[in-house]
Amino acid sequence: MDYVTGIREVQDKELEELAAGGLFGQEVCVKGAVRAVRDRGEITCVILRKCRGTLQCLIRKDQTGIRLHEGMTVKVSGILNPESRAPGGFELEVREAEILSSPAPGTSMPLPVGKWKMNTSLETKLSLRPISLRNLRERAVFKIQEGIVRGFRDFLYREHFTEIRTPKIVAGNAEGGANVFRLEYFGKKAFLAQSPQFYKQMMVAVYDRVFETGPVFRAEKHNTVRHLNEYTSLDFEMGYIESFRDIMDMEAAMLQSVLAFLQQEYEKELSILSVQLPDASRIPSVRFDEAKRLVSEKYNRKIRSPYDLEPEEEMLIGRYFKEEYGSDFVFVTHYPSRKRPFYAMDDPEDKRYTLSFDLLLGGLEITTGGQRIHMYEDQVKKMWERGMDPAEFENYLMIHKHGMPPHGGLGIGLERLTMKLIGEENVRETAMFPRDVTRLEP
Amino acid sequence: MDYVTGIREVQDKELEELAAGGLFGQEVCVKGAVRAVRDRGEITCVILRKCRGTLQCLIRKDQTGIRLHEGMTVKVSGILNPESRAPGGFELEVREAEILSSPAPGTSMPLPVGKWKMNTSLETKLSLRPISLRNLRERAVFKIQEGIVRGFRDFLYREHFTEIRTPKIVAGNAEGGANVFRLEYFGKKAFLAQSPQFYKQMMVAVYDRVFETGPVFRAEKHNTVRHLNEYTSLDFEMGYIESFRDIMDMEAAMLQSVLAFLQQEYEKELSILSVQLPDASRIPSVRFDEAKRLVSEKYNRKIRSPYDLEPEEEMLIGRYFKEEYGSDFVFVTHYPSRKRPFYAMDDPEDKRYTLSFDLLLGGLEITTGGQRIHMYEDQVKKMWERGMDPAEFENYLMIHKHGMPPHGGLGIGLERLTMKLIGEENVRETAMFPRDVTRLEP
Repeated sequence: MDYVTGIREVQDKELEELAAGGLFGQEVCVKGAVRAVRDRGEITCVILRKCRGTLQCLIRKDQTGIRLHEGMTVKVSGILNPESRAPGGFELEVREAEILSSPAPGTSMPLPVGKWKMNTSLETKLSLRPISLRNLRERAVFKIQEGIVRGFRDFLYREHFTEIRTPKIVAGNAEGGANVFRLEYFGKKAFLAQSPQFYKQMMVAVYDRVFETGPVFRAEKHNTVRHLNEYTSLDFEMGYIESFRDIMDMEAAMLQSVLAFLQQEYEKELSILSVQLPDASRIPSVRFDEAKRLVSEKYNRKIRSPYDLEPEEEMLIGRYFKEEYGSDFVFVTHYPSRKRPFYAMDDPEDKRYTLSFDLLLGGLEITTGGQRIHMYEDQVKKMWERGMDPAEFENYLMIHKHGMPPHGGLGIGLERLTMKLIGEENVRETAMFPRDVTRLEP
Repeated sequence: MDYVTGIREVQDKELEELAAGGLFGQEVCVKGAVRAVRDRGEITCVILRKCRGTLQCLIRKDQTGIRLHEGMTVKVSGILNPESRAPGGFELEVREAEILSSPAPGTSMPLPVGKWKMNTSLETKLSLRPISLRNLRERAVFKIQEGIVRGFRDFLYREHFTEIRTPKIVAGNAEGGANVFRLEYFGKKAFLAQSPQFYKQMMVAVYDRVFETGPVFRAEKHNTVRHLNEYTSLDFEMGYIESFRDIMDMEAAMLQSVLAFLQQEYEKELSILSVQLPDASRIPSVRFDEAKRLVSEKYNRKIRSPYDLEPEEEMLIGRYFKEEYGSDFVFVTHYPSRKRPFYAMDDPEDKRYTLSFDLLLGGLEITTGGQRIHMYEDQVKKMWERGMDPAEFENYLMIHKHGMPPHGGLGIGLERLTMKLIGEENVRETAMFPRDVTRLEP
């Protein structure tokens, strides 16, 4: 019988192994994609693209008899030499080369992906996304995004959160409103989940603290630099809180942990993009009404609606706290009740406001969170006040009816957070394959 | 200014802190949900449910003046004492108790969630899922499922895979076939992704090795114990392979790593469910045609179609390798070309078969994988042969056109893997909120 027992020893090396230095002067084998070829007379300099960096290879024309070009994938063997001018501080003097695959004959790369900066419009980059992501700078964005999610999860595991998986095809519409995608589900009406809100609340009664990192869907017709119609939401929900402040404390600690993790494990990509990460060690917190007053005074801007925060105002709040307190982050608390969903807990001291918050980064909302109503009577009452029929929410209200701890949570837009961390201006830059009002492909 | 700086010291303890033993004889504070109340005359014994276990609390009636009942959440303080008959080996002698929340007046728990086994039909459990998951055994299933996904990711990070996030709303239909959910996307036709197949292949050319753990959607009308219409797919795809065997090697190593991780970090839940994990250290591998011949001979079963594997045959192959080789797992390789998608690489030695495999666990397919076509001409040729128009796959073929390494990968059905690992018979048991032909709620 033939048995499969696990990974067998592989001959070829990863960049990390080459960089360790122990292989200098020795013969090594490496596989990679040809990123660039520079002819220098007798010697050809070939740059291979590997997972997290590049390898410079020198090939003597008479030695291999092989002509390499961009887009090929190859297996090369030769002597690894230290070379301070090469990326990573070493280069490969190739003795043997084997072509593993080639692009289609007669084609050439539709974008200069081998260049440091492609100088291409966003529109072109997105239309050719499978190719444009091969560029070192483009792909660094999503390696950093991986790090954010990884850091988020690792922190929450340590804090006794349980990871959950909630359905994306749902019968109801958690947030209310019309911005929901509809689909036919075996003759029934169904929706794509706008958020895991109901489900994460249900699971708080099961595991005390839960989180999910998954896709959410919003059929918003806004075609702006900060909207996507499908995005990744980093959600957590925690029970047994004493106040909604506990959620903000948890988020601040999570951000500190994620930023430290990025600095440690993703230094390579941060450096490729020249990113200076913000400081989350002390995040100012200001009430919604106070924040409006502050920017109105400082920037001489009339408050048009006391219950709304316009994008322009959000931006100015960000600017205010950067100028006055040197902080990129700011928590805005106590949003008006009429602007928050029916499950938001009102402030007992002033019911026009809720025990809720947004977190702004660089003047953009990246998180919405708050305390939820946990008592059945309170939730049913608020539903009636809003003209909702509790009977339609029987599955959801089951949890309140049979006992819920005081709880709250938040949702973070991953692409927005990534965008603000790396200093991009359009959220499409930080979605691997963005979906917007006009874009459904690739 | 008010600053948020991170998690503040909390008064209440988690079970892990209590179990460490250092707090015996001391006053501690704990929060939890009342799971059961047993009246013993002067003393009431209250069992609190915490995230990963329970705490036995003794309350003297005269001491607190509080009557607790199931479904309440409470904060209790008292002296922690060792007690060998209590769960975890300790109990709390309560001095003060505070009710944090109560179920709605006049209600009682619709299921005996406080019992060890609920003895309830699957149908009832699923209809009351937000409540039934509060049962210790029910929730242990999904804690183990968390462990599988965590172990999967941790292993792949170590093996230089990059985590990707691919769109779930797509313009095309990767696997072909009719089993796809349709939706309206701003006036365009769109589908829910049946798999991240095209996208993970695209990303192999970017990061060499990639993985994703996300939802996939299949509009299959099968209402069987092994089908869900929304499930979690654990996908990976790796470049620079020498043979499709590399993918099987990687899967075996991953499974070994995941099983060891479960044994170490989820021992509590494995023990609640009395799970004996299978052995993945040596997985037998057999060709598709050979497997059919073996079970046909041993179980005296006629081969009806040489190119198909019926569920009954899958089950018998599982049984054969358990009986003859003592293995719960078996790789079945070289599936017929006509049963595999257009991107599967045919075996150059016999083009009726592909360089592909399934992994069976306990006679059920839990993984489908294989090598993919990487050369543009080969892919276009196979499309024409199948009556497909390459022009409709321009976005996908971009990657072949501009150079792809030899590559392959696999997809694992998380709910099926969980089901087989814990010995369940219906895949709905291992989906938190299952979606099937008739079930869209809760």
